[in-house]
Amino acid sequence: MKMVKKAVCLISGGMDSFVSAAIAKHKGYKIYALTVNYGQKNKKEISSAVKIAEFLKVERHLITKAALSWTKSALTDAKIKIPREIRKGEIPLTYVPARNTIFISIALALAETVDAGAIFIGVNAVDFSGYPDCRPEYIRRFQRLINSATKKTCGGGSIRLQAPLLRMSKEEIVKKGLSLGLDFSITWSCYKSGKKPCGQCPSCIIRAKGFSAAQTPDLIN
Amino acid sequence: MKMVKKAVCLISGGMDSFVSAAIAKHKGYKIYALTVNYGQKNKKEISSAVKIAEFLKVERHLITKAALSWTKSALTDAKIKIPREIRKGEIPLTYVPARNTIFISIALALAETVDAGAIFIGVNAVDFSGYPDCRPEYIRRFQRLINSATKKTCGGGSIRLQAPLLRMSKEEIVKKGLSLGLDFSITWSCYKSGKKPCGQCPSCIIRAKGFSAAQTPDLIN
Repeated sequence: MKMVKKAVCLISGGMDSFVSAAIAKHKGYKIYALTVNYGQKNKKEISSAVKIAEFLKVERHLITKAALSWTKSALTDAKIKIPREIRKGEIPLTYVPARNTIFISIALALAETVDAGAIFIGVNAVDFSGYPDCRPEYIRRFQRLINSATKKTCGGGSIRLQAPLLRMSKEEIVKKGLSLGLDFSITWSCYKSGKKPCGQCPSCIIRAKGFSAAQTPDLIN
Repeated sequence: MKMVKKAVCLISGGMDSFVSAAIAKHKGYKIYALTVNYGQKNKKEISSAVKIAEFLKVERHLITKAALSWTKSALTDAKIKIPREIRKGEIPLTYVPARNTIFISIALALAETVDAGAIFIGVNAVDFSGYPDCRPEYIRRFQRLINSATKKTCGGGSIRLQAPLLRMSKEEIVKKGLSLGLDFSITWSCYKSGKKPCGQCPSCIIRAKGFSAAQTPDLIN
């Protein structure tokens, strides 16, 4: 009997988690997509996440709430404006306290519930090195925590935390996605919720640089 | 200038988290109470948590939602009955996948938001050894994760995960609470939401044993 490999894939609506989930699918995993509605100001992300889950023909797409509207961040607090630029060596205002830790924890609950052996997250440490919870050390420590955190992992099973984009540049991520046949026009990277991406926020700028370096047009424009 | 020590204290509505938070208060911390409404069938817990926060005169009590109603557990799934007994060496049906991991992650977000230096959680490994996420190893690994997970802890600050009841028996917990002047009659331990505790579920039984061993009456009855 062939074992069914299952993976929980965190899907934010952006490019990175799309590529990360597509890699899981390419590796033969059945995908359980997970999107966390955490009270972000930007609601476009979630509708993009729905399109991505449909594109990837996932087994199930769970959109669950974990209110973080009480955190201090430009992404959750209406009083804090999205910054125009990111200063080198500084953690940007768009950092949401413990967000990835909460996301991975919820993914862990889902992985245990559906008996999945892997969690895929699209973090990368290269083009967003300002975030502490996007670094290899963080992922390694979370894996060690997982190994002693659940009924499954303490009972002989394993849940591997996979971050396949961890060491990729945005250019490499774009190229990887294109090689997997992904339609990036359904993704949303802009920190704002306009009809079109603003083109000026740090996330739009990093996205544009990635497409430009990969010498391919961004069809969202 | 005297520094204000702040702690985020997870409050479930039960006895253990009450004692844990009272220990934090006794140590001089200003308390930021956190209760997670995770879709538990038992709603009495949350009203007890409110009473506990009032009793402790906390600085703030945040009750936040993180839906886990999609997990397989006797505490969240209406189709799974609360078990009558706990078998030795088995993780009980009342185990909720990754629940403490999610709770501590949300506490971490709150600790960073209010600039608290500690998180208090009332887990103990003695009388509930069935739960993987109540063991010393789990707490140690979570501390290591915290140290590389946030802007605060990666920027020179620290957030200490404190589990003061980790190695206490229920008898010791009762005695500790009484020595701190706590009114246990406002807590709720029963897995069900009746007018009075059922007296038969594993949680009621452990509570009764604790009071009996401490040779003191449980005024909730």
